[in-house]
Amino acid sequence: MLNQILDQLDSDQDAALARLFNLLRIESVSTDPAYKESCTAAADWLVDDLKSIGFEASRRDTTGHPMVVAHSGGSGPHILFYGHYDVQPVDPLELWDRPPFDPALEETENGKVIRGRGASDDKGQLMTFIEACRAFKTVTGALPANISILLEGEEESGSPSLIPFLKENAEELRADYALVCDTGMWNADTPAITTMLRGLVSEDFTIHAASRDLHSGMYGGPAINPNRVLAKLLAGLHDETGRITLPGFYDGVSEVSNYIKDQWENLNFPVDEFLGDVGLSHPAGEQAYSALEQIWARPTCDINGMWGGYTGAGFKTVLPAEASAKVSFRLVGEQDHVAIQASFRKYLEDGLPEDCSISYRAKDGAGATNMPVEAPYFAAAQRALSDEWPNEAAFIGCGGSIPIVGHFQEYLGMDSMLIGFGLEDDQIHSPNEKYNLSSFQKGARSWVRILHALT
Amino acid sequence: MLNQILDQLDSDQDAALARLFNLLRIESVSTDPAYKESCTAAADWLVDDLKSIGFEASRRDTTGHPMVVAHSGGSGPHILFYGHYDVQPVDPLELWDRPPFDPALEETENGKVIRGRGASDDKGQLMTFIEACRAFKTVTGALPANISILLEGEEESGSPSLIPFLKENAEELRADYALVCDTGMWNADTPAITTMLRGLVSEDFTIHAASRDLHSGMYGGPAINPNRVLAKLLAGLHDETGRITLPGFYDGVSEVSNYIKDQWENLNFPVDEFLGDVGLSHPAGEQAYSALEQIWARPTCDINGMWGGYTGAGFKTVLPAEASAKVSFRLVGEQDHVAIQASFRKYLEDGLPEDCSISYRAKDGAGATNMPVEAPYFAAAQRALSDEWPNEAAFIGCGGSIPIVGHFQEYLGMDSMLIGFGLEDDQIHSPNEKYNLSSFQKGARSWVRILHALT
Repeated sequence: MLNQILDQLDSDQDAALARLFNLLRIESVSTDPAYKESCTAAADWLVDDLKSIGFEASRRDTTGHPMVVAHSGGSGPHILFYGHYDVQPVDPLELWDRPPFDPALEETENGKVIRGRGASDDKGQLMTFIEACRAFKTVTGALPANISILLEGEEESGSPSLIPFLKENAEELRADYALVCDTGMWNADTPAITTMLRGLVSEDFTIHAASRDLHSGMYGGPAINPNRVLAKLLAGLHDETGRITLPGFYDGVSEVSNYIKDQWENLNFPVDEFLGDVGLSHPAGEQAYSALEQIWARPTCDINGMWGGYTGAGFKTVLPAEASAKVSFRLVGEQDHVAIQASFRKYLEDGLPEDCSISYRAKDGAGATNMPVEAPYFAAAQRALSDEWPNEAAFIGCGGSIPIVGHFQEYLGMDSMLIGFGLEDDQIHSPNEKYNLSSFQKGARSWVRILHALT
Repeated sequence: MLNQILDQLDSDQDAALARLFNLLRIESVSTDPAYKESCTAAADWLVDDLKSIGFEASRRDTTGHPMVVAHSGGSGPHILFYGHYDVQPVDPLELWDRPPFDPALEETENGKVIRGRGASDDKGQLMTFIEACRAFKTVTGALPANISILLEGEEESGSPSLIPFLKENAEELRADYALVCDTGMWNADTPAITTMLRGLVSEDFTIHAASRDLHSGMYGGPAINPNRVLAKLLAGLHDETGRITLPGFYDGVSEVSNYIKDQWENLNFPVDEFLGDVGLSHPAGEQAYSALEQIWARPTCDINGMWGGYTGAGFKTVLPAEASAKVSFRLVGEQDHVAIQASFRKYLEDGLPEDCSISYRAKDGAGATNMPVEAPYFAAAQRALSDEWPNEAAFIGCGGSIPIVGHFQEYLGMDSMLIGFGLEDDQIHSPNEKYNLSSFQKGARSWVRILHALT
């Protein structure tokens, strides 16, 4: 039976790719209100596709972009699959080699890739699971038993509707555990289950000074410049060794166990290649830690955006009325995102000179997550993945946060198993995003093996 | 004789105002090619008016808008008067209370004002001088001896034709000194001669790090963030007292003489009002200096713009590939703008961490200008102004630069005396520009007194 389903997947590859391209053409950028209708269209497309293979599926509207919920029904362990259909903005558009929403298959030196915004994050990934379900249905006449699916449309914009939705629909969505497909493999030959995720808390704020923009010829000197205030506050967040200076920031951060450290050392992380691929050569994080520890096991403070004054062509000798920044913190271990946000705000406010004030566009946060790797479904999935790929599947960490995992724990009381087929060079969130064709095809085959083992 | 000429001016007030209104009706916006013919029309209007009172006047075409040049001839000291007939754009038009090119006299709580684009900057100002010449001609039958006039049509658009024109016509235009009428009074009762102008040097640069934008989940920690590098560099430009830290920056900065300092103290600069008008309360410049010294006599370093990473709505956990800033320095005394630019670049480059590089969009600079206030024509003009207005005329500074003064020094080897009758609330460059009727009428009377004393 397993081989029949895998064969079915292989014989349906062209149609599967066409389906994915249709989904990729929908410009479901969730951060920008201009794309609201496209987000709804993507949800509708998924509902229709899930219905067509036998899921009881529906679009569930929220105050933001809609959710897609589907159930296969049946008995056995209840498993909730999670993915997201929204994508990152595409700017700077001029750095794309082709229109981001006109996907295409391209031949590269590493094989064929699917090029386009969302190819990897997360439309290509979520479709690996749906294609696996489709193959089950085609071969067996039924979907794998007791699968539910939750597809979100706001993952790239902070998931404002998610927690209310989980709370309101907890009975319907609560499962024995979740499968989340939004992560990557260790490398193109080595599948991985991500068992540690950094958390994230972010702040988006503006420093206000004069009531209007001023001319530096008239006011330069006596008028406070919020750009200068902002630069000083941002510059003070790290000490000379790369350590973050906020009081209490490292509370709850513990060292990685030797057991995990040994595993990570065995992965022979190619740090020179990792950095060299993006034009860098020196790990710039905390000096006392290896690059892999810096990514997986150490917290960070990142200035994701800052702006103030005149930023166009030419020059304008303006003293701006305000300056703004977007700052985020990657969290590990037991770091408390609420306490860190409070500490950051206190730092900013304590550092404001006279005549300056600050306003916030508040963001949510989530702590880091550590998975129950001793649970039997982890071993089963690890075996299934190892059967599909050249190398054994590894338990790895992840530098990014996947807030859904914390939300599932907090609001549905269930753990998650994170399995995905993205690769480091997928350029997610950047121009020219891609997903390897092998990720898409062997990813779907992997889910067939995993579902066969788990259901 | 002086009183006869002043009486002539007073009796000709209505006609003088009608002439100014005719000039104000010509839409000579120099920045916008749509108004090219209007600029030429304004030049022609001035040529005709100057000819009508006995000047040998001509329109001198350039690759941009034309110059107007006129000579009275005669013996004695040669004096070049400078003004400009072009005006700022009028947008946003909806903020004007009347059509900007349909001038009118309006009654306000501070007396009558001439409302319209260019009323103050600089058509009203330049006509004060022409009306003074006309009154001389009417009463004495001759113009004041050896006056030349240069009226520019590109002052509001960067004066692209000015330096070539000065170079090509240096013999004709070179005078003993220039009178420039494009500045203001200290207040409505206190005339002023501007004797110190700050210079300006600016730098527009980008710090480059990774070869592309990175995701902070994947690279946060080991990847250098150019926003953080830029913030640190910008934050290091000032010490805790507001002093600029660049090596050699204060070379050539000297303290204001007690003579000038006393004059400035007598002006009773209303610092609370000056800052309060724009929502500020504390002078934020170098702590050791008064607000007026900070504006007129102290150099500054201003971050006019900075930007890096994601600055749109929502949040993007990006580590940008680059971060940029526009920084300018207001210069005083003998500060060398070339040396300061070099010191700034060295500071930036010395502070770059590994894996970062910097690129510049180079800008020109100009040093500060200090007038030869000990020259006898300064004393004579100061006496003449003091005779006309309620308060004694003051020697004041100006926080901005007026490039013509530097150009006259560099290309014609002559100093300038800056005398004008604008007021802080004239709203030049803004909607509802005005010029007080008293500025126009007593301005013309002031020039009669000054010309009588100087020629």
